[in-house]
Amino acid sequence: MKYVNDGKKVEDVKIAYIGGGSRGWARGLMSDLAQSAEMSGTVYLYDIDFEAARANETIGNAIYDREDVLGKWHYAAVKTLKEALVGADFVVISILPGTFDEMASDVHLPEKYGIYQSVGDSVGPGGIVRALRTLPMYKEFAEGIRDYCPNAWVINYTNPMTLCTAALYAYYPEIKAFGCCHEVFGTQKILGLAYQEKYGKFLEREEVNINVLGVNHFTWITEAHYRNEDLMPVYKEFVEKHYKDGYIVDTSTHWMNNTFVSAERVKFDLFKRYGVIAAAGDRHLAEFCPGYWYLKDPDTVKEWKFGLTTVAWRKEDLAQRIEKTNKLLSGEEKFEIKVTGEEGVHQMLAILGIRPIVTNVNMPNRGQIPDLPEGVVVETNAVFSPRGVQPVCAGKLPKGVDALVRRVVQEQQLTLEAAIHGDYELAFEAFVNSGNMAIPLKDARELFNEMLKNTSKYLPFYDQYVK
Amino acid sequence: MKYVNDGKKVEDVKIAYIGGGSRGWARGLMSDLAQSAEMSGTVYLYDIDFEAARANETIGNAIYDREDVLGKWHYAAVKTLKEALVGADFVVISILPGTFDEMASDVHLPEKYGIYQSVGDSVGPGGIVRALRTLPMYKEFAEGIRDYCPNAWVINYTNPMTLCTAALYAYYPEIKAFGCCHEVFGTQKILGLAYQEKYGKFLEREEVNINVLGVNHFTWITEAHYRNEDLMPVYKEFVEKHYKDGYIVDTSTHWMNNTFVSAERVKFDLFKRYGVIAAAGDRHLAEFCPGYWYLKDPDTVKEWKFGLTTVAWRKEDLAQRIEKTNKLLSGEEKFEIKVTGEEGVHQMLAILGIRPIVTNVNMPNRGQIPDLPEGVVVETNAVFSPRGVQPVCAGKLPKGVDALVRRVVQEQQLTLEAAIHGDYELAFEAFVNSGNMAIPLKDARELFNEMLKNTSKYLPFYDQYVK
Amino acid sequence: MKYVNDGKKVEDVKIAYIGGGSRGWARGLMSDLAQSAEMSGTVYLYDIDFEAARANETIGNAIYDREDVLGKWHYAAVKTLKEALVGADFVVISILPGTFDEMASDVHLPEKYGIYQSVGDSVGPGGIVRALRTLPMYKEFAEGIRDYCPNAWVINYTNPMTLCTAALYAYYPEIKAFGCCHEVFGTQKILGLAYQEKYGKFLEREEVNINVLGVNHFTWITEAHYRNEDLMPVYKEFVEKHYKDGYIVDTSTHWMNNTFVSAERVKFDLFKRYGVIAAAGDRHLAEFCPGYWYLKDPDTVKEWKFGLTTVAWRKEDLAQRIEKTNKLLSGEEKFEIKVTGEEGVHQMLAILGIRPIVTNVNMPNRGQIPDLPEGVVVETNAVFSPRGVQPVCAGKLPKGVDALVRRVVQEQQLTLEAAIHGDYELAFEAFVNSGNMAIPLKDARELFNEMLKNTSKYLPFYDQYVK
Amino acid sequence: MKYVNDGKKVEDVKIAYIGGGSRGWARGLMSDLAQSAEMSGTVYLYDIDFEAARANETIGNAIYDREDVLGKWHYAAVKTLKEALVGADFVVISILPGTFDEMASDVHLPEKYGIYQSVGDSVGPGGIVRALRTLPMYKEFAEGIRDYCPNAWVINYTNPMTLCTAALYAYYPEIKAFGCCHEVFGTQKILGLAYQEKYGKFLEREEVNINVLGVNHFTWITEAHYRNEDLMPVYKEFVEKHYKDGYIVDTSTHWMNNTFVSAERVKFDLFKRYGVIAAAGDRHLAEFCPGYWYLKDPDTVKEWKFGLTTVAWRKEDLAQRIEKTNKLLSGEEKFEIKVTGEEGVHQMLAILGIRPIVTNVNMPNRGQIPDLPEGVVVETNAVFSPRGVQPVCAGKLPKGVDALVRRVVQEQQLTLEAAIHGDYELAFEAFVNSGNMAIPLKDARELFNEMLKNTSKYLPFYDQYVK
Repeated sequence: MKYVNDGKKVEDVKIAYIGGGSRGWARGLMSDLAQSAEMSGTVYLYDIDFEAARANETIGNAIYDREDVLGKWHYAAVKTLKEALVGADFVVISILPGTFDEMASDVHLPEKYGIYQSVGDSVGPGGIVRALRTLPMYKEFAEGIRDYCPNAWVINYTNPMTLCTAALYAYYPEIKAFGCCHEVFGTQKILGLAYQEKYGKFLEREEVNINVLGVNHFTWITEAHYRNEDLMPVYKEFVEKHYKDGYIVDTSTHWMNNTFVSAERVKFDLFKRYGVIAAAGDRHLAEFCPGYWYLKDPDTVKEWKFGLTTVAWRKEDLAQRIEKTNKLLSGEEKFEIKVTGEEGVHQMLAILGIRPIVTNVNMPNRGQIPDLPEGVVVETNAVFSPRGVQPVCAGKLPKGVDALVRRVVQEQQLTLEAAIHGDYELAFEAFVNSGNMAIPLKDARELFNEMLKNTSKYLPFYDQYVK
Repeated sequence: MKYVNDGKKVEDVKIAYIGGGSRGWARGLMSDLAQSAEMSGTVYLYDIDFEAARANETIGNAIYDREDVLGKWHYAAVKTLKEALVGADFVVISILPGTFDEMASDVHLPEKYGIYQSVGDSVGPGGIVRALRTLPMYKEFAEGIRDYCPNAWVINYTNPMTLCTAALYAYYPEIKAFGCCHEVFGTQKILGLAYQEKYGKFLEREEVNINVLGVNHFTWITEAHYRNEDLMPVYKEFVEKHYKDGYIVDTSTHWMNNTFVSAERVKFDLFKRYGVIAAAGDRHLAEFCPGYWYLKDPDTVKEWKFGLTTVAWRKEDLAQRIEKTNKLLSGEEKFEIKVTGEEGVHQMLAILGIRPIVTNVNMPNRGQIPDLPEGVVVETNAVFSPRGVQPVCAGKLPKGVDALVRRVVQEQQLTLEAAIHGDYELAFEAFVNSGNMAIPLKDARELFNEMLKNTSKYLPFYDQYVK
Repeated sequence: MKYVNDGKKVEDVKIAYIGGGSRGWARGLMSDLAQSAEMSGTVYLYDIDFEAARANETIGNAIYDREDVLGKWHYAAVKTLKEALVGADFVVISILPGTFDEMASDVHLPEKYGIYQSVGDSVGPGGIVRALRTLPMYKEFAEGIRDYCPNAWVINYTNPMTLCTAALYAYYPEIKAFGCCHEVFGTQKILGLAYQEKYGKFLEREEVNINVLGVNHFTWITEAHYRNEDLMPVYKEFVEKHYKDGYIVDTSTHWMNNTFVSAERVKFDLFKRYGVIAAAGDRHLAEFCPGYWYLKDPDTVKEWKFGLTTVAWRKEDLAQRIEKTNKLLSGEEKFEIKVTGEEGVHQMLAILGIRPIVTNVNMPNRGQIPDLPEGVVVETNAVFSPRGVQPVCAGKLPKGVDALVRRVVQEQQLTLEAAIHGDYELAFEAFVNSGNMAIPLKDARELFNEMLKNTSKYLPFYDQYVK
Repeated sequence: MKYVNDGKKVEDVKIAYIGGGSRGWARGLMSDLAQSAEMSGTVYLYDIDFEAARANETIGNAIYDREDVLGKWHYAAVKTLKEALVGADFVVISILPGTFDEMASDVHLPEKYGIYQSVGDSVGPGGIVRALRTLPMYKEFAEGIRDYCPNAWVINYTNPMTLCTAALYAYYPEIKAFGCCHEVFGTQKILGLAYQEKYGKFLEREEVNINVLGVNHFTWITEAHYRNEDLMPVYKEFVEKHYKDGYIVDTSTHWMNNTFVSAERVKFDLFKRYGVIAAAGDRHLAEFCPGYWYLKDPDTVKEWKFGLTTVAWRKEDLAQRIEKTNKLLSGEEKFEIKVTGEEGVHQMLAILGIRPIVTNVNMPNRGQIPDLPEGVVVETNAVFSPRGVQPVCAGKLPKGVDALVRRVVQEQQLTLEAAIHGDYELAFEAFVNSGNMAIPLKDARELFNEMLKNTSKYLPFYDQYVK
């Protein structure tokens, strides 16, 4: 790469995109890159579905000359991971580990035993089995990065976020990787709305200064300020007013449909109990808590006013995305450049020294949360600058929350080790210790075995377990 | 006190017994003291039921001149805690916190919500509420010890063992206290029997050298030797043989009745899963694990072949003890001196320098289990000598077990702080985070409130909570 | 205070200045405040020398209407600490603890025993005795802040920086305080010059991105980047070229005179040995290392090409400042507004949300250097924003440097405790353990006693020691 | 091995003796083994000086039939390490690393620069260079143990004790090793004498119950009891009485000559300053403290009334031992069986389950001193039993002592890493950071290089350093 315009712009940046056939995240990145005049270069798209990567190459290159495109990027689909990685400055990982069939088993099979999951991709039975399947895939990625671009910065967007990021460090300890997730942003928006309700002025995300700590999808805001004003009392008032009926943030302009809407009642309940703000969507929060609290059965879920994501919906959504892709390829539809709200491009610009930012990120614990074990991946704010990505010291959680988070951390530690080493007895211990697993041991063993079988195509260690 | 016989005997030892009206433990202590010629002195019996203490005074003094009594002790019932404590060398605490009515609520009320507890005095809903009631009582004890016998060694026998011991240190940090429990001994016996089954020779407890670590009633044996022979393979063989049907240790000579018998299937199951030996009775182990594993419902309990202790049984047992007391007082029955298996007297002798011993004990973590938080009360071996009671470094638990134990430790940390400070919201967090609480939040709140109400007579902070 | 101009400016800010009669730092602050249009308000000047504060009031108010003054501030000398503190938004502490007579004893008395100190205000005999005298003064400051402006942000500029900051937290643990020092900036300048020597372009401080960690005056740069270019190889080349003869940074425009000039040979030597950059002036570095390395005697000092600061110089400098003050008061001289290079005003603006910055700061260790003990004051980068001042995780020092820094930390821990509690035996242990104290115990005791006597006027605990 | 006599005796024990040609320690072991009827077997003597091992074989076997010999042992000199180790139950390591010529350089060369060492084998310039030479030799030992007797218990007697023991764990982390030293015993004797002076009764070592912690040769007694009597006030009185003139423990029956006698003034001085008892000979203590305190020059040493050991004495002593060996071989002199005071045989018996003991030992920190880093070798009490050797939790050192000990620990950590990896720059950092090195850097470099050269024959990494 090279700096031009007295260091205000960087050219010839090379980005490797693993999962480059993605019909969601990849398009978002294209859109964000197009809107920044401060960086240009090439994105190498690698995907096990080469045709999907090729489609993105075509779509991405088609906008190069458009005049509303400020950041000029070439897109190149490549057939090997190595081609994507050699000399990369940044690596983006956003993959679907397995297919929606495996995901259907992760999410819905436990229902047979009365276990409901609202997302099923991060913790609990679904999250654990997904991790067992996904983490071994990261071995190739991490070792490729080590061999072909050891100094590149790596951004992971794949779930289970915490464990995928942890796996990168487990396979290549010197890696410079972090995981990104926008769940916290949504909670900042609620704070902005709470302020608006009281004072008439909506606060933009940049105006809502927060201290966050926890693990991804179970991150907590312990301090929130707008200028020198403490927003916690504002939020408290808001919660007290809306606790009973909930509050619907208008999401009509968002790409997600109604399955994803919640009335924030889980979030409000956790605030009333702990005094700090749970900073993720209710669907995520519910499944990080003990299972019977908010997910006992569909009626309990309805009472708390959030939705259970179905894989059927995801399949349908995929069909629509494929259709949209075809339209983009045929020219029937024009690629729309819009603000995604993701921060990947801003993070890259900050690392390149264009404009430093502080934002939340998932990285191994190097002191940012001194009460949690060293090395486990946690979510806190971090400074992005040419020095790299340095987490800020985030302090402590209230005791009650600490107990909840630690339990999740323990489940994740067991799962990580089980997945990396193919230790299925340890995996089973993670499984039966999960807060969502209020079923007898025999049933748990049955369910676990069936779930593994359903995902066996993607389990490198499956055979050694079955024997 | 003074040393005689060239230091081989100690006279004028003063023991303060808090709960000195006890019809079980106090009699056991009398019996053990009577059998040791190496120590004599006076036991001061303090009890809120003075008449019960007075009865023990009579019974204890009656045996003074018997010739099968080697250790000559005077017994004196006193009306104030101060009288018992002033100048004490040792303090024994063995109380019933509240009555069996409170205990009935602790143990059985949760059954209304489908929560079964096999003992209900250490963890889970029953253990937590019992702790809330009991710990504040320890304030008076600890401060009395601080004021009247600051250098005395204090032995706690009351449950919840871990938290009662922790409370002593919380109220008087310089206290020299430890908690004792015989559950580990029973597991050593099983090892002795396993050896016998293989080699024909039963191993006495002294021959079964073990490394233990964990928290009381959830202690784990990670190494076991007879001389230089590793007993773990012997136990493994034993477990494999008896896993399916269980194994009944003959307890016919023991004071407990059938409610307490188990077939060790929980213990065997935990060994198969974790490779280390859970060293407590199955009734205790079951309720320290997630509730659905072994305690989902009475049928599950039956399948695992252990019993749910009922408070009805305890009430009946008490009636028999009272009857027996009357017979002892009237002379109709003679006080029987027998080996209790408890180690209190041996521990005192070791501290006095007569004969050092190493045995398991509950004390604050000062490095003995470096992976657990500093200061929480844990169970490991310790050296008893004139230097005091020094825990030995016990190493680490296997990861799966560590996750189970930590969860209990977290529940205990929340409960301790809640009980000491009267923070009932924190208490509720301990309650709903307990592994046994697979019920919706609303039900949990209802149950908790009702349990508190049932024990409100003994809750100093009750009013501030209700308002 | 209140925000105006859509949040781009803050009015009615209240700053309390302890040591407000200062003829150096206070004038610098006036100058910096005058240059920022984004903030206005009142500075309350408190000093035990009220007349000196009054002089600054006059000088400060005199420039209010000048048109080159963008930030409009009122100055008010007050007679009590309370008047300064009530309602303050920021508190600045910059005092001279004792007089130059005490300082002369700190710095020069040890020379009688062959101990040379290049500054004598932070560590070693001089630093320790200065700390014993200074820290008790901070009790009144900290308690005043607790009582009158508990939420104010407190900036300490007084040496010993580490221990003054630590004392604030010791006396009022909830304080929001940090210590600031510009020594790191000078090292960034050297990096900029090294870059210039190689590439022809001088790097401004903002362009030299560094990771710093250590304790004040003994801070280390472990990473340095200009954009994505690693500056460590550039510095290595520079050191190799200039090691033998040294390198003089032109300081002709600086307020300090030649006593303060060094040829950076100590800094270069430490780099050659440890591979990381010591980020303070050589005079400071020399006295944080074992004494015989660079300070054995004046000849050794000369060889390493740095100067021993004399208190005689400081006295002379003071006379000049007083003369200059008189000229400013009489109007003979005009107050000159210039860039001081200090960051206090930028830090305030960042905390107010005007413009966040990341810079180095001294704060208690909350995880930023996980290898050093929790709570000791360390120097690392921190994020300044409306969230407050959050240190960033700074990683680890090379083992050799870690050993040097830890030793200093231990000396400081002993000194802090000794000073706070008036424990002079502990103070003596800090004294004789100091790296600079290669003299026999008897001499050390003699020297220590004499130094204490010389400063006894300011030692609240002196009597209890002597008796 | 096999147990006989109902477990009261063990036959066919196999001991491997590395350094089996030793004319001191090996003879002591023979003597101790001969006095215990509870164990018998074979000692395999391995030495790079095979003839010396052969001589010990002859001497050892010659006493087999003597009737004052209760423990019947065969001795066999072997030519390879493997022959000694295969199947060993215990391994004893007691070697002379290099010759007295290397030791002469270690101890006396620094005197050229004014650095005096009283022993020179554990810390400081002599100790560091000795470690650099010795530790690599331990690689072969540790790997041999790993390969040929992985479950054997290993007792190290070689200095530098701490680092030799640490090296065993560094090269083979699963090793079961500990280091033994009798210095603490001598201090227990002084306590016994102090008691005698006050009460007329000398206390035997077994009666002096102590808590010890620190690093070898710099171990501290923080508690001492005889029965329930606190011995600290007794010692305090003793110190106050003898501080000025010192106190000579009669050592006339000991094998050491006058060079080793001290008047305990260093020990007394440290007690007066810190309130805890330094538990090693004054010669050792002096060189673990900063050099100028007690070792500034020969006059200072004389004032503190202890001796500087000379290597000339050691050479002379060796000549006498060789002469004595010849007499033993020729039959001119009879092998004398006497109590050595060493505990090796008792430790073996305890590990075999014959008779458990608690005594001080050097092992990696696994929580026994929670304030020191995990894994560094420390000295505390430990329980010896069939469970193995488990350190007891020893608590904390007073702050002043902690600072002294930590500094030594840091020097040792640097030295260990330098010696294991052949990193001579790191070794030099250990060297110049040593408390005894109050000389300029240039002189230090010169001295270091010369010392390395003098020991280069035994430095495997020497070449890579010099180039």
